[in-house]
Amino acid sequence: MKLEKLVGERFKERPSECQIESHAIMVKGGYIKYVGNGIYSSYMPLKRITRKIEQIIREEMDAIDGQEVQFPVVMPASLWEESGRYQSIGNELLRFTDRTGTGMVLGMTHEEAAVQLVREYANTYARYPFMIYQIQTKFRDEARPRAGLIRVREFTMKDAYSFHTSQEDLEAYYERCHKAYERIFARAGIPEVVSVKSDSGMMGGSVSHEFMLLTPVGEDSIAICRDCGFSANMEAAECIIENEKDEKLSVLSKVYTPDIHTIEEVCDFLHMDVKKSCKAVVYQRNKDDTYVIVFLRGDIEVNEAKLRNLLGEEVHPAVIAEDSGICPGYIGPVGLPEGITVIIDSSLQGASNLSCGANEKEFHYTGFTPERDLPAGTEYHDVGKILQDGICPVCHKHSIDISRGIEVGNIFQLGTKYSRSMGMTYTDQNGEKQVPIMGCYGIGVGRLAASVCEAHHDEYGPIWPMAIAPWQVHLCAMRIDNEKVRETADTLYDTLQQNGVEVLYDDRDVSAGVMFSDADLIGIPLRVVVSPRNMKEDVVELSARDKSFSEKVPIAEAPGRIREIIAKQLKLPAD
Amino acid sequence: MKLEKLVGERFKERPSECQIESHAIMVKGGYIKYVGNGIYSSYMPLKRITRKIEQIIREEMDAIDGQEVQFPVVMPASLWEESGRYQSIGNELLRFTDRTGTGMVLGMTHEEAAVQLVREYANTYARYPFMIYQIQTKFRDEARPRAGLIRVREFTMKDAYSFHTSQEDLEAYYERCHKAYERIFARAGIPEVVSVKSDSGMMGGSVSHEFMLLTPVGEDSIAICRDCGFSANMEAAECIIENEKDEKLSVLSKVYTPDIHTIEEVCDFLHMDVKKSCKAVVYQRNKDDTYVIVFLRGDIEVNEAKLRNLLGEEVHPAVIAEDSGICPGYIGPVGLPEGITVIIDSSLQGASNLSCGANEKEFHYTGFTPERDLPAGTEYHDVGKILQDGICPVCHKHSIDISRGIEVGNIFQLGTKYSRSMGMTYTDQNGEKQVPIMGCYGIGVGRLAASVCEAHHDEYGPIWPMAIAPWQVHLCAMRIDNEKVRETADTLYDTLQQNGVEVLYDDRDVSAGVMFSDADLIGIPLRVVVSPRNMKEDVVELSARDKSFSEKVPIAEAPGRIREIIAKQLKLPAD
Repeated sequence: MKLEKLVGERFKERPSECQIESHAIMVKGGYIKYVGNGIYSSYMPLKRITRKIEQIIREEMDAIDGQEVQFPVVMPASLWEESGRYQSIGNELLRFTDRTGTGMVLGMTHEEAAVQLVREYANTYARYPFMIYQIQTKFRDEARPRAGLIRVREFTMKDAYSFHTSQEDLEAYYERCHKAYERIFARAGIPEVVSVKSDSGMMGGSVSHEFMLLTPVGEDSIAICRDCGFSANMEAAECIIENEKDEKLSVLSKVYTPDIHTIEEVCDFLHMDVKKSCKAVVYQRNKDDTYVIVFLRGDIEVNEAKLRNLLGEEVHPAVIAEDSGICPGYIGPVGLPEGITVIIDSSLQGASNLSCGANEKEFHYTGFTPERDLPAGTEYHDVGKILQDGICPVCHKHSIDISRGIEVGNIFQLGTKYSRSMGMTYTDQNGEKQVPIMGCYGIGVGRLAASVCEAHHDEYGPIWPMAIAPWQVHLCAMRIDNEKVRETADTLYDTLQQNGVEVLYDDRDVSAGVMFSDADLIGIPLRVVVSPRNMKEDVVELSARDKSFSEKVPIAEAPGRIREIIAKQLKLPAD
Repeated sequence: MKLEKLVGERFKERPSECQIESHAIMVKGGYIKYVGNGIYSSYMPLKRITRKIEQIIREEMDAIDGQEVQFPVVMPASLWEESGRYQSIGNELLRFTDRTGTGMVLGMTHEEAAVQLVREYANTYARYPFMIYQIQTKFRDEARPRAGLIRVREFTMKDAYSFHTSQEDLEAYYERCHKAYERIFARAGIPEVVSVKSDSGMMGGSVSHEFMLLTPVGEDSIAICRDCGFSANMEAAECIIENEKDEKLSVLSKVYTPDIHTIEEVCDFLHMDVKKSCKAVVYQRNKDDTYVIVFLRGDIEVNEAKLRNLLGEEVHPAVIAEDSGICPGYIGPVGLPEGITVIIDSSLQGASNLSCGANEKEFHYTGFTPERDLPAGTEYHDVGKILQDGICPVCHKHSIDISRGIEVGNIFQLGTKYSRSMGMTYTDQNGEKQVPIMGCYGIGVGRLAASVCEAHHDEYGPIWPMAIAPWQVHLCAMRIDNEKVRETADTLYDTLQQNGVEVLYDDRDVSAGVMFSDADLIGIPLRVVVSPRNMKEDVVELSARDKSFSEKVPIAEAPGRIREIIAKQLKLPAD
């Protein structure tokens, strides 16, 4: 491919609307074009990158006995009514009607389609286990698309679905898939991706993991133990608080606290540490606006995903009605009106002598000791957010780091949520009807490309790993008007292509500055320069985009040496 | 791949709902699964076929300097408003709103997206010509999906868009693309596809061709000259009628024709040949229901696509209102009320002494001679349907055959319809602003797969050409309980796979009947049978799915011989 003919604009200036580097690079470098909110077209360089990523994913899915299939992008709503998700999923599921008025959805994930494809086929235990996958366009009507390809509305995803006759078999396969994911990310050039335990959210099921590229610009927070290596996303990381009970317990006493509303004001007023307070956070259920009040230790925040999972339904921060009986600014766990759901966070377990609201305007309590003052049998629930330097749920040291990351993949043990609701059964060895157990496994292709860019770039552009680079060699002919330069570069271009090397050839009559800044923006790992100066020595210059090496090679030896470098870089350390 | 693990059901019975063979085979053979009206999922065998077809298309598009890009499936309606198609296209364009109420469409074709991708980049003549293409899911809300993958609502399509600075350059590229299409169909196994001149319809532009697989089950009609090879679809084939003028012209006379309405009744009543009559067909414009009356020779039918193109707008068969002044059953070209659009078909040119309606209840005229009785300067237009044994517009013999075909691809010279409406310009050599000229080029991937199946099958199933077969070799181990069979087949399976041969291995403990009927349904071109009888002779049996050969080969020589057959079949006659 000649660079001169490559469709797409490259810009010098960083686009002002880009928050993160991969987004800026993809716009500046002619990789993507904005079409609509969270919707992009891809130019050839990105298309070549994503096709290589797709091929890596395909090979690794095939290696764990996956069968590539294809589900539709547009599905009848009735399929999603079978699983119950037509009702339970919010606006991100795009619903519409076709010309006949039939309800349709745009696929944002394909559990329903996977079950529909195999439920008649897989009617006997002998046909299990199996895994089917596709690489296909999806649409999720995100409220806030952002960061270029990191959070879009339309995206290409590999989604895989496995079917099993026992939990043990699912777990064994889940482990195989976990390893395949590690190989995929390593082959794509980001072996540093970590897997973290995660919350399954709307997917259902119990055990799940997210694969995270750690980066400050990531939109997810992750708890990682710097000591034992435990890792989990915030929803899945237990927030462990060790309270030491005071030797002397005060009595519960009402205190006049005029014009005091926030937990900080209360603690200031009473000269108490915020850890010696009990705060209230009020929510309302989405379905009927009834109240849910969470009580936690003053320094702990609510993790709303944990709360939603505990309640099994959606909630939102409350707007407290005048006639609710709730007394904003003075809410406490003792003496609340009837009919309000109360959740006591485990951060209050073992605490003593706390301040808390008295459910009466301008009054707080002091001397609140939950285990004494709450009704016998009160349960404590983990709905708090784990803190930096918090306690590791595995090794129990104060060794938790909160990092940020981009989720590049996920794997779920789904259980029977979809198979059961959609009436999928098989006959087991004893002739009994059973419901199969499922797993599902996703990787966003465009997001993975953007993540590699985020992990591998410098101030001038991306540094694509050889395995997914749009081309393997960037051939620069400087001073193309020089006859020997032209002849050498043209010959090299032909020879390399005949040898199966992917070459982007820049034979434009432009300055070295323009040539190199374009090469930086396209980010091909190996650069080959043919210039009048090199011609005098009968050499060409090979250099790495990441500046790790630069060497002069006699013209005749160049094709061989180039192939050697490519082969080496395509090989994984583990190979 | 072991057949035992292949997900998908195979059926003995032909599904009753299937009208054509490729549809029946794809359902029976476990290739597709119905999800909704015109929407299917694909199982692994079809996915492998379509991936191979896509790769053939990709190689041929790259070979004519195409750049693979990707446009979105979901686009903002505003993009289609720019070109005017948001308004002009009917219900087949699926329109909906997203969560913010913004109008969106599902891409059924991507001219607008192509212009949007390149209109800033291609602002100078030096950047022309270029071609961009994608292979992507499309959705067209067809009123009547039918025939399995032949006419679906969701489909995968290769669509390409070229941009030029002159008509000559477009025409030269159009010719290159025409040749690339011939290579694609030949490589996919249907070199018999013919290209026919076609009507551009809603795509705009002038010259276009459709690539047709001729088959009685096709939904398109095509006129082909059995003498000179001229071919065109019905809309693009001129209907030439040679009328011989009678020596003696009668006077135009009104005749009482009670209870006579149809053209046949009139001719019977008057004892005249239908060719000596002039009939009327009444339409209404979609936009305002005004009337358009077409007059043709009695034996010629209206081709509505020609009529629409002539009028430049949509029409529908009329419902004639009482107060319209039109006299159903007695409509004629002489004495019609004012304000009605009258189209005189060229089949009336040179005719004489015809019968026609008198625009008065129960009366017809005889002796109607258009050139005498119509106003001076009346124009004749070609809106009639070409007939079997009609006159070839090229060699002028009565040598037209009307055939049926499946359209497997199309190419269009679009002109400036999209570039102009969407404000795309470039600066030419003289510094003047110009509007680029476009071409577009489509192939439906699934429809191509179904067409190959339609062209290559027998009563037992498909006969896939080697280049697109789901696997290259179907290995049958008969009596797997025989130790030597098991050992030989297992070894052969491993050896072939190590040699890069794609093998589907049937080592199930089933009867020869089941094994062979499954092999027929999967349609792999080369079958290898390992059986106890063969083992006695130390041979395996190779045979072609199309029965063209069958041979016994010593076990040790089998891998080499198999690779030789595959290589030979992958090579095109032209190579």
